[in-house]
Amino acid sequence: MLSWVDGIPAELLSVKDRGLAYGDGLFETIAVSAGKPRLLERHLARVAEGCQRLQFSVDLALLSAELVAFAQALNEGVAKLILTRGDGMRGYMLPAASQARRILQGSPKPTYPTDNAEQGVRLFPCTTRLAEQPLLAGMKHLNRLEQVLARAEWQDAEHAEGLMRDTTGRVIECVYSNLFWSKDGVLLTPDLSRCGVAGVMRAELLAQARVLGIACEVRDCSLDELLTADEVFVCNSLYGVWPVRALQAHDWSVGPLTRKLQAIARDLLDC
Amino acid sequence: MLSWVDGIPAELLSVKDRGLAYGDGLFETIAVSAGKPRLLERHLARVAEGCQRLQFSVDLALLSAELVAFAQALNEGVAKLILTRGDGMRGYMLPAASQARRILQGSPKPTYPTDNAEQGVRLFPCTTRLAEQPLLAGMKHLNRLEQVLARAEWQDAEHAEGLMRDTTGRVIECVYSNLFWSKDGVLLTPDLSRCGVAGVMRAELLAQARVLGIACEVRDCSLDELLTADEVFVCNSLYGVWPVRALQAHDWSVGPLTRKLQAIARDLLDC
Repeated sequence: MLSWVDGIPAELLSVKDRGLAYGDGLFETIAVSAGKPRLLERHLARVAEGCQRLQFSVDLALLSAELVAFAQALNEGVAKLILTRGDGMRGYMLPAASQARRILQGSPKPTYPTDNAEQGVRLFPCTTRLAEQPLLAGMKHLNRLEQVLARAEWQDAEHAEGLMRDTTGRVIECVYSNLFWSKDGVLLTPDLSRCGVAGVMRAELLAQARVLGIACEVRDCSLDELLTADEVFVCNSLYGVWPVRALQAHDWSVGPLTRKLQAIARDLLDC
Repeated sequence: MLSWVDGIPAELLSVKDRGLAYGDGLFETIAVSAGKPRLLERHLARVAEGCQRLQFSVDLALLSAELVAFAQALNEGVAKLILTRGDGMRGYMLPAASQARRILQGSPKPTYPTDNAEQGVRLFPCTTRLAEQPLLAGMKHLNRLEQVLARAEWQDAEHAEGLMRDTTGRVIECVYSNLFWSKDGVLLTPDLSRCGVAGVMRAELLAQARVLGIACEVRDCSLDELLTADEVFVCNSLYGVWPVRALQAHDWSVGPLTRKLQAIARDLLDC
């Protein structure tokens, strides 16, 4: 598959890269459809915020042009962007001036069971908890061992996603997705100021729901409260929206708010 | 400098490596003196434990032989070992059978100001806190953004190390080192069951202190309590032991317990 490093076709990287040494960088997983990167502005905005918080520079205009060119070359599939602080000497200290290294990897369009979008998915209740670290919360950084351990908790195909809570027990997100629920017509999603990844699709759906006049709330939620929701769904920037039909002994039917936002996500992703 | 990947001289790595993608791996920083890796058994024991906790395999006999050969080739300096889960497809799910990828990088012997070991060091009080994550605590894994952010907090040469606390305020470790203190003849070091890296030198000093009949305690400690210590020192597997002479407004003189353990560390590292 297509693979570029700093704009040049390459499948190898220096062993001195700080992305490898410390997970010192960020990533984005971008849907590519009809030769175009989807939700590009939101992906770039998250990159810009992440670079600022991790204190390294990226040329956003160059990156944007590169993503457009990469998507054109890939045509259909997934563009995974990894941005690292580049090479470093031994030791945590920041190199004098770090310009982000840009790694792009293409992969084919993922094939999900059609049932996931239609009937909805069952969530696996992960026991791996997310640590509370406000300095890293929200970012899609490269320190992802918690997700690796959580995803290793189930092997069966019956669970399309795993629900993750923080060490205090709050519901935060799923391993690959953000979580929404609705109650009495209000759309809700967990606060991600202590942990979790603030997904691009999550941001887009919140914005679009507000435009539609749907009341939205971002706040803490316990597992007990989630089980009293009217509708539950998960979302990400590849598959859009999947209704959640089951978690532990609880079942949900697919509701109208979920279907409305699913249609919006489909349009955005052209999928 | 010397650089090997899976036993073969190489300075490049696949961009598909999960160490880059997720920080999915471990590392060790091993002092090499007179052609020999120092504290090799302890480094290998930590690797074995880390691989088990992260659920990937490593051939320890092969790794051990490789470290001996690498140290022989390097002769003097530092051997940095990175073990990753190897290449992966997109997604957190564990690859079917993962045998660790072995990356070895050599660097020259670090030159520290002689004052660090003689007069002691001043600790910078980092504001970056360590998140509590028992599933990852103690391991020297590749998710090290907290250390990167903490090390970026100070630039002056006056502070040789930075003190890190957890999100609850407990004193845990320093950015590159473990922390010890003494009170009324008892040697103490923080409990690392929620966060922190369980250093090889820390383990060795605890073992040697017990052999010498010194009472040792591993437990939680607040910053206020640390400031009442009789002696404070930091340690790692490269420089051995540095007395701590100052933290904030507090000053310590170098005590006999610190000097005793410093001499032991010197012998171990041949430095």
